[in-house]
Amino acid sequence: MATTVSTVGEQCRAARDASRQLAALDTATKNEALRAIAAALIERTPEILEANARDMQAGRENALSDALLDRLLLDASRIAAIAEAVERIAMLPDPVGEVVDGQRLPNGLDVRRVRVPLGVIAVVYEARPNVTIDATALCLKSGNAIVLRGSSTALHSNAVLAAIASEAAVQAGLPAGCVTLVSGGGREELAELATQTETVDLIIPRGGEGLKAALKAVATVPVIYAASGNCHVYVEASADLDAAERIVLNAKTQRPGVCNAMETLLVHEAVAAEFVPRILARLGEAGVLVRGDTRVLAHAASAALAASVAAEDGASRNGDGAPPSLVLEPATEEDWDTEYLALTLALGVVDSTAQAIEHISRHGSGHSEAILTRDTAAARAFQLGVDAACVYVNASTRFTDGGEFGMGAEIGNSTQKLHARGPIGLRELCAFKYLIEGDGHVRA
Amino acid sequence: MATTVSTVGEQCRAARDASRQLAALDTATKNEALRAIAAALIERTPEILEANARDMQAGRENALSDALLDRLLLDASRIAAIAEAVERIAMLPDPVGEVVDGQRLPNGLDVRRVRVPLGVIAVVYEARPNVTIDATALCLKSGNAIVLRGSSTALHSNAVLAAIASEAAVQAGLPAGCVTLVSGGGREELAELATQTETVDLIIPRGGEGLKAALKAVATVPVIYAASGNCHVYVEASADLDAAERIVLNAKTQRPGVCNAMETLLVHEAVAAEFVPRILARLGEAGVLVRGDTRVLAHAASAALAASVAAEDGASRNGDGAPPSLVLEPATEEDWDTEYLALTLALGVVDSTAQAIEHISRHGSGHSEAILTRDTAAARAFQLGVDAACVYVNASTRFTDGGEFGMGAEIGNSTQKLHARGPIGLRELCAFKYLIEGDGHVRA
Repeated sequence: MATTVSTVGEQCRAARDASRQLAALDTATKNEALRAIAAALIERTPEILEANARDMQAGRENALSDALLDRLLLDASRIAAIAEAVERIAMLPDPVGEVVDGQRLPNGLDVRRVRVPLGVIAVVYEARPNVTIDATALCLKSGNAIVLRGSSTALHSNAVLAAIASEAAVQAGLPAGCVTLVSGGGREELAELATQTETVDLIIPRGGEGLKAALKAVATVPVIYAASGNCHVYVEASADLDAAERIVLNAKTQRPGVCNAMETLLVHEAVAAEFVPRILARLGEAGVLVRGDTRVLAHAASAALAASVAAEDGASRNGDGAPPSLVLEPATEEDWDTEYLALTLALGVVDSTAQAIEHISRHGSGHSEAILTRDTAAARAFQLGVDAACVYVNASTRFTDGGEFGMGAEIGNSTQKLHARGPIGLRELCAFKYLIEGDGHVRA
Repeated sequence: MATTVSTVGEQCRAARDASRQLAALDTATKNEALRAIAAALIERTPEILEANARDMQAGRENALSDALLDRLLLDASRIAAIAEAVERIAMLPDPVGEVVDGQRLPNGLDVRRVRVPLGVIAVVYEARPNVTIDATALCLKSGNAIVLRGSSTALHSNAVLAAIASEAAVQAGLPAGCVTLVSGGGREELAELATQTETVDLIIPRGGEGLKAALKAVATVPVIYAASGNCHVYVEASADLDAAERIVLNAKTQRPGVCNAMETLLVHEAVAAEFVPRILARLGEAGVLVRGDTRVLAHAASAALAASVAAEDGASRNGDGAPPSLVLEPATEEDWDTEYLALTLALGVVDSTAQAIEHISRHGSGHSEAILTRDTAAARAFQLGVDAACVYVNASTRFTDGGEFGMGAEIGNSTQKLHARGPIGLRELCAFKYLIEGDGHVRA
């Protein structure tokens, strides 16, 4: 076990004590600890596999879905990948101590604003046991102590992983209490953890809407919610339609189950007659079920596009291995607000960029929005008018990612506006403080 | 009245609509609106004075204290000062559109992180009617719509001030709904306002602990609390004691009722025998009541310092106009946690810089902390080890202030770690978004 203290409150106080020492550690010591964790993961792989086998066994007994079992499963190559990710985080620049800005005041005082760790970060997460290590590495690198609360499904896996991380880190010189796993994955532990305002500085949930709702109901500690991504791509009248076809297919199909995948496509009326039938055909080939507004249905009909009605299970492939035919259904109002996270797309026609912006402001979740255009005025209006973490011109929404943005790694993606917006990397796990130096300055 | 719509929800939705247009406005238009507000305040001074007279009359009937009546009172010169403050905010740089950072990614995508308004900011405040205008000017300059909720004590004054600001702003080209005063200063309106998560992005309370507690109990909208300032000055063993004397007196007496005033003085044992009697004498002359630990009492005794016992009302001046004698009492544990906001000081002796840091981490509120020293290692250890918004070396804590820090103005002082820490100026009223530009980029 990562720790022997018993209550959640005690664990958080121990983390708070550890955080004071962590904040003052040099980068080399932190990196050494991360490398020690990576090495220990490889070395102790049999132990991890054994614990994971127990969770898998329990999962099968509790009739977890195949998808959940796959998320829970660890094998040697997955453990190696987790260790590699820790090594990569060790190689990232240390955000702590970075001077954000500074100046000499008119009275001669020197002011620097310097990045410092937040202190204690609690991460609450669901099935995937790799989060235990990913989150730990990001928190330690940014000088924060971490309190982990996983789900009961991954009880044994998480316990071994947290113990390995804690032991390796402490051996490498990090303070005891820097990595703590709250025992018990119940709602009570969640509520207790979420109200430790004296010792916990931030809670980050990694999981589904149920977890977030449970947290929202009880948390008094600040939480950064990674809200859903109802992302839009808008094909403006002047768009390069070849590029638009590539971007639309990429944003929808490259990895449909993630938050930066496109969920609604908007097409300007001026190019709808050409682009709607064309993209419908390609979406059909890619197995995407499309929910279109009345103008989309009309454009499809006048293009004499063969559209079948979706089968009950949403299947759109023919039995004989032939390319799937398009499945096109009428969109309902609900479709514009739905994050499908699947090969389903809402498709609408708009009369103007202003109307596209208005649609996005009404239905978007503030994650990632894209305009495809050759018109500088349209691009500028869209970037100015759309209120979202990431606003793209002529690129796929799929790039919203800490790795892609050069942050090296991320612990989630914030759709909040306060503190962190977009990918939450090492810098976003930090606060800052003002350091002010004088030589006897008093205020007049 | 600033607005004719009725419910808090409707007012917030109107503010949300206005915020979209505000976010896209150029700096010149916003500055013009601020200057129009300043001019309207001067022009309509008689109207303001009449409304304020009604509040003052009601205040006297309700037996408000003289201090509260003074905070409520407006006269021509106070109105002129409020107008001047608006003019100064107009002259500050616009935070909106500022590129925070940016880069070209390896794949050729250009990424810029750009400051944008938060959207709708609610400011809830107590007696002082000038907050109506100060907060409005800061929010409009930073491109935010503002929803104001003042106290019933200043009902008529706030209503006229908000109406003047709203009318002048709209005439100058700002959208209707950009300035809204919630009618009614009751707890119900507060609860309704504090739960408008769909339309309000941030709530900033300006008032006492009662207001903050009331807000904490009901708010689901993010709040930035300006917590109390239990600020410390630590006189280290190597300190220049002449400078220390000036700084201690400044930090305690220059304006004792504000959050950046010193509340506890810590003195290193090595200089306590010399500095404690010396500073006690000066504090006594300045009318400061001192609560000392046992070592302070011993140093005072061995210096044969005349110390009287405090009178019941805390008065420390003699009746005949002679300089007041020192009032020194034993400190209790509670004193170390007390923000006096008055001419009272807790005074303790410590054995080391580590012990001073430990005391501050136990009792401080994370506002402003100072070390006075000539030793670079002590200065460095203190700045590294103290977790507070502002950590000073050889300067008074009184400098923690948006104006002093060159921000031009502030709407409060945050002791939170997330989003804003220290003075909340125009930048802190902003979020950011990523703007990403490509030429057909898709993710591999």
